[in-house]
Amino acid sequence: MPLMRLAAIIEYDGSRFSGWQLQVGTRTVQGVVEEALAQVANASVRVTTAGRTDTGVHACGQVIHFDTETERNAYQWLRGANSNLPDDAVVLWADRVDDEFHARFSATGRYYRYVILNRKVRPTILQHRVTWDHRSLDEVCMQRAADALVGTHDFSAFRSVQCQAKSPIREMRSLQVERRGEYIHVTAYANAFLHHMIRNIAGALMTIGAGEQPVGWVKEVLQSRDRTKGGVTAAPDGLYLTAIEYPEVFKIPRLSPDCGLW
Amino acid sequence: MPLMRLAAIIEYDGSRFSGWQLQVGTRTVQGVVEEALAQVANASVRVTTAGRTDTGVHACGQVIHFDTETERNAYQWLRGANSNLPDDAVVLWADRVDDEFHARFSATGRYYRYVILNRKVRPTILQHRVTWDHRSLDEVCMQRAADALVGTHDFSAFRSVQCQAKSPIREMRSLQVERRGEYIHVTAYANAFLHHMIRNIAGALMTIGAGEQPVGWVKEVLQSRDRTKGGVTAAPDGLYLTAIEYPEVFKIPRLSPDCGLW
Repeated sequence: MPLMRLAAIIEYDGSRFSGWQLQVGTRTVQGVVEEALAQVANASVRVTTAGRTDTGVHACGQVIHFDTETERNAYQWLRGANSNLPDDAVVLWADRVDDEFHARFSATGRYYRYVILNRKVRPTILQHRVTWDHRSLDEVCMQRAADALVGTHDFSAFRSVQCQAKSPIREMRSLQVERRGEYIHVTAYANAFLHHMIRNIAGALMTIGAGEQPVGWVKEVLQSRDRTKGGVTAAPDGLYLTAIEYPEVFKIPRLSPDCGLW
Repeated sequence: MPLMRLAAIIEYDGSRFSGWQLQVGTRTVQGVVEEALAQVANASVRVTTAGRTDTGVHACGQVIHFDTETERNAYQWLRGANSNLPDDAVVLWADRVDDEFHARFSATGRYYRYVILNRKVRPTILQHRVTWDHRSLDEVCMQRAADALVGTHDFSAFRSVQCQAKSPIREMRSLQVERRGEYIHVTAYANAFLHHMIRNIAGALMTIGAGEQPVGWVKEVLQSRDRTKGGVTAAPDGLYLTAIEYPEVFKIPRLSPDCGLW
């Protein structure tokens, strides 16, 4: 039987997973997704992701591909996977794709959103789904600081020491800070991101929003290329992988970067 | 020591509570709130609520009052209560109020919001926080049906058999249906609500939105005054008590009916 390539879009609540990547003895998104697909395929399945997410990070538009010999139509893959997935992960879409499609290497852009609850008291209803900051944040200052990060830069200063990427250069295509009542949304669109890059940027922007550093500080940090200058890594709770962009030829549905959720 | 009256605004995630009302041996919001306030007061506290919520129903603007002999300032009540409350309930505001203030009887209006996730696949990130409907809902039909409920009516057809209110007449001041991407928000503003009234109305509107009944059906149900004609009671998961309205003289902060959340 010939191998077929399938792609799928996955949504998950990251709060009870130890991140995306398969680890023996730990509950990971990759683990539950591969298990659910294997039940549909009646054979083991190994999936490749557009981007691994850390412990506690959510996704409403994660993209994967996998190869299988098993003949199922799109509806059977979707329904079968969803009836075997736990209640904190779901397949939003699945279909056969061209063999040239690769969830990671075909991606031309990625969207993440960081959601901050900015009020004096802690969250309840959106606990683990937003990052709480009790300091009064000035979103106008945060946006002005964010503007300095747009463009093609060496983002070493916002890169985790564990980052395995060969190059620290990324193209930040847009970085928007928007207040909606007690919430601040930071929406980042780039060709790709380094490990912890959004959380490190969010941490720096929150420091500036709280008035603890001037607007110009983020540019200094960027130019230093020194992670030790960049301040705190913001919590994973408010981080959402919202969409992955591919060339239209692959016919992967375009999800709104608003991810339906916000 | 003279008794002082205090008021507070409470937010809670209803999904792990057996509703508001105190019950021995069960985890209720009233129970945890009274326990937390008692620790601040160093004395037992009995609270009165603007409106009891059912199991699974959330609130971002619940209002209570209580009487105490204990002298604490507003900040001490807020901080003290919040450090003694579990992670799914929080005090947003607390202060001393006039002795004439009564959380329930002084209220002149109530806002509820019902949040529906309208897509083919089940929720993950907002599980227990939205009501899922996989049918394709037409929000324009839902709004047209909702319009028939605005005004002063006998709402017997949308009232639970357990409802203890003396009169079934309520003034629905507005009832708005709004789509935001995959979400539909039903926002209800009335002088007061009967038991299960919003969930019964939401159930009827969803039936109409799915095309299973014509737009005019909701008016027929209303006029029948017969609960058995009204169809399904929608799940509590998507229901939020968002704000209570009082005469300005009492100086209770006005929360946005958007409740910060949505």
